[in-house]
Amino acid sequence: MDRTQVINFGPGPSALPDSVLEESAKALLNFQGTGIGISEISHRSKEFGAVVKRLEQLIRTQLDVPPTHHILFIQGGGTQQFSSFVLNMLARYRLLHPNIPDEEHVMDYVVTGSWSKKAAEEARRLGGAHVNIVVDAREHSSDGKSFTGIPPHEAFKFSADPALIYYCENETVHGVQFAQEDRTPSSFPFHLLARDAPGGGAIPPLVADYSSSFMSRKIPRLADHAVIFAGAQKNIGPSGVTIVIVREDCLVDVDAAAKMGAAPVPKMLAYKTYSDSGSLYNTPPTFAIYVAMLVLERMENVGGLKVVEETNRRKQEKLYGVLKESEGKNLIRFNVKDGSRSWMNVVFRGKDEELEKQFLASGEAQGFKSMKGHRSVGGIRVSIYNAITEEQVDKLVSFIKEFNEKIAA
Amino acid sequence: MDRTQVINFGPGPSALPDSVLEESAKALLNFQGTGIGISEISHRSKEFGAVVKRLEQLIRTQLDVPPTHHILFIQGGGTQQFSSFVLNMLARYRLLHPNIPDEEHVMDYVVTGSWSKKAAEEARRLGGAHVNIVVDAREHSSDGKSFTGIPPHEAFKFSADPALIYYCENETVHGVQFAQEDRTPSSFPFHLLARDAPGGGAIPPLVADYSSSFMSRKIPRLADHAVIFAGAQKNIGPSGVTIVIVREDCLVDVDAAAKMGAAPVPKMLAYKTYSDSGSLYNTPPTFAIYVAMLVLERMENVGGLKVVEETNRRKQEKLYGVLKESEGKNLIRFNVKDGSRSWMNVVFRGKDEELEKQFLASGEAQGFKSMKGHRSVGGIRVSIYNAITEEQVDKLVSFIKEFNEKIAA
Repeated sequence: MDRTQVINFGPGPSALPDSVLEESAKALLNFQGTGIGISEISHRSKEFGAVVKRLEQLIRTQLDVPPTHHILFIQGGGTQQFSSFVLNMLARYRLLHPNIPDEEHVMDYVVTGSWSKKAAEEARRLGGAHVNIVVDAREHSSDGKSFTGIPPHEAFKFSADPALIYYCENETVHGVQFAQEDRTPSSFPFHLLARDAPGGGAIPPLVADYSSSFMSRKIPRLADHAVIFAGAQKNIGPSGVTIVIVREDCLVDVDAAAKMGAAPVPKMLAYKTYSDSGSLYNTPPTFAIYVAMLVLERMENVGGLKVVEETNRRKQEKLYGVLKESEGKNLIRFNVKDGSRSWMNVVFRGKDEELEKQFLASGEAQGFKSMKGHRSVGGIRVSIYNAITEEQVDKLVSFIKEFNEKIAA
Repeated sequence: MDRTQVINFGPGPSALPDSVLEESAKALLNFQGTGIGISEISHRSKEFGAVVKRLEQLIRTQLDVPPTHHILFIQGGGTQQFSSFVLNMLARYRLLHPNIPDEEHVMDYVVTGSWSKKAAEEARRLGGAHVNIVVDAREHSSDGKSFTGIPPHEAFKFSADPALIYYCENETVHGVQFAQEDRTPSSFPFHLLARDAPGGGAIPPLVADYSSSFMSRKIPRLADHAVIFAGAQKNIGPSGVTIVIVREDCLVDVDAAAKMGAAPVPKMLAYKTYSDSGSLYNTPPTFAIYVAMLVLERMENVGGLKVVEETNRRKQEKLYGVLKESEGKNLIRFNVKDGSRSWMNVVFRGKDEELEKQFLASGEAQGFKSMKGHRSVGGIRVSIYNAITEEQVDKLVSFIKEFNEKIAA
């Protein structure tokens, strides 16, 4: 089978643009005419140094990351961040509040799907602070146990002075995403965060997991975040590198905090290790960083985030559009309520398992790969990350129309 | 410049075989005829699952890893392991010795170069046990402050019951390596480890950093080790994946240990996370794993570790041979004493800085890249990892002979 016969709708690692892969393939043997491949060249070489700087600059420009925020490249995926941000933010809290005893430290978790649930579990495992569940979306679902959307704003119960507030912007498994427009239903309730201090006070440290929506559209209130992180393997590159955007005051001197009683932080989990060294404290995943740079260069060349966001908007509108027709014919039902549905991971169930099987098998025959839903959810999940073109979505839409007709016949 | 004009003697990331890079380049666009690239395919696919299993099997067979030992693939490099093995082994010690108070826990560090020095510093940072320096090689050097070789066996002062004993088999920066033959000068003194218990008792948990010599020759007493780790980017692949071989009893239930007072271990730093999931707990660095598999397949095809070891033996004999001639002519001097010199990183100083500059510039003109010594050591360092062929070493040897003649003229 060749690339033209296949569309990879997998949840990640996922599709990358052909042109990027072609250039990467050449660079594997000879990177920028050095006679040395990109996987072989020293991470201390000026050539690779320029790649890291360029990747940082591409992210900074396209996402409009303010100078207050550093951009770091870290290994270990989003799951390792579940530990890292906890340790860094608890160290920060310890430095800021030397007199508040550990038992009174609180971390706020917004739970809207399996990833945020996992993040909260890791926070509990690590201890060091009470984990307050701001809201558990399951309690607001019709069956009381499913992740089916973002709960109403009034359900969010933030703590008075948490060491961090974590949320997952897009839940890859459940297909639940926060709405982008501030103060609309299903948006993140930033307006509830201002503290009671005179004049409103500062927003508590917001930590956002953008793993599966990074660079797919604008990040609302980016500058108000303490930490934003994203594994590369959805929208911007191969697996093996995680982009972490950290506000200056969260690049904590973890050793100073440890002296004051905070838990010691492993060197490679401390954000300051990366900001002090330009993400070159030890050997970084050079190939993954290089490919991510190519992906974002290409993105800039086609018009940048704005254009990509508009394409992504149309892609999901088209796909949800035809699926609403299927829903109208009682062929499928959505797991997630309207308004909370993900732009990236389109999740639905067939009317019965037989139809799901048929759908997946017919899709597979057309070359549509990896549309099976996560084992914890079942059904269908179609991931339409940045590298999936509008044309490819059109093909899927036509397929669904034909499928519906065939079923009706 | 093309590949044929260049020899990459860099300390890592370093050279990879042409044939492997060519196959990887093809796989980037289409992996095993799936129509999907290796960086795009799901880590849960059967195709990628087979890659992980194959890589494990290639390591197991060629290094003769016994079934008591698990082979894990972890991100973060050797430096992250400096934290991970400490946390895992302290958790293990806590479970085994619930009644020994923390203040009496000890970790033994053998310091023979900058990497083992760094490892010991991280152990001190993390706390949780006293760090005993078994021996500091600098104290046995002529100037009292340089890393110039493995100290004599009688200088090693092991603790009675350490939670771990760490050593770095090959010091990449200083070019210091343990001798391979047991009970010879500069070998690791395994014979001093047997405990006083009747019958000799068990060897305390040995942790060996093999980052820059892994798969270059046989590992002495492999089965007696608790943990052996190695970043891939020297001998077996691109950066971004670290191979960790862990004995069964060191796959610790860190949560149980934490309940007994051990420090909590971040999920992605706990070895059990990887052994329980076949190194697929979260998305692994798929490309790096794939390339490492190709490198080791190729190694098997050319005769396996035995043949590679013999080639490496000849490579370093030839290179040290011509350098001894240079030494005889007072053109260079070795930093490291005979017997402790690394097979992988050949480190020396020119008689003066001028000669070093000339050597590097003339070498560069021949396409010999990255021979400059580490900034902390100065001089010259030539890294001749597995992918450097004997023919390429021959070229370097001829160059050095000619260089010596030119200088003499």
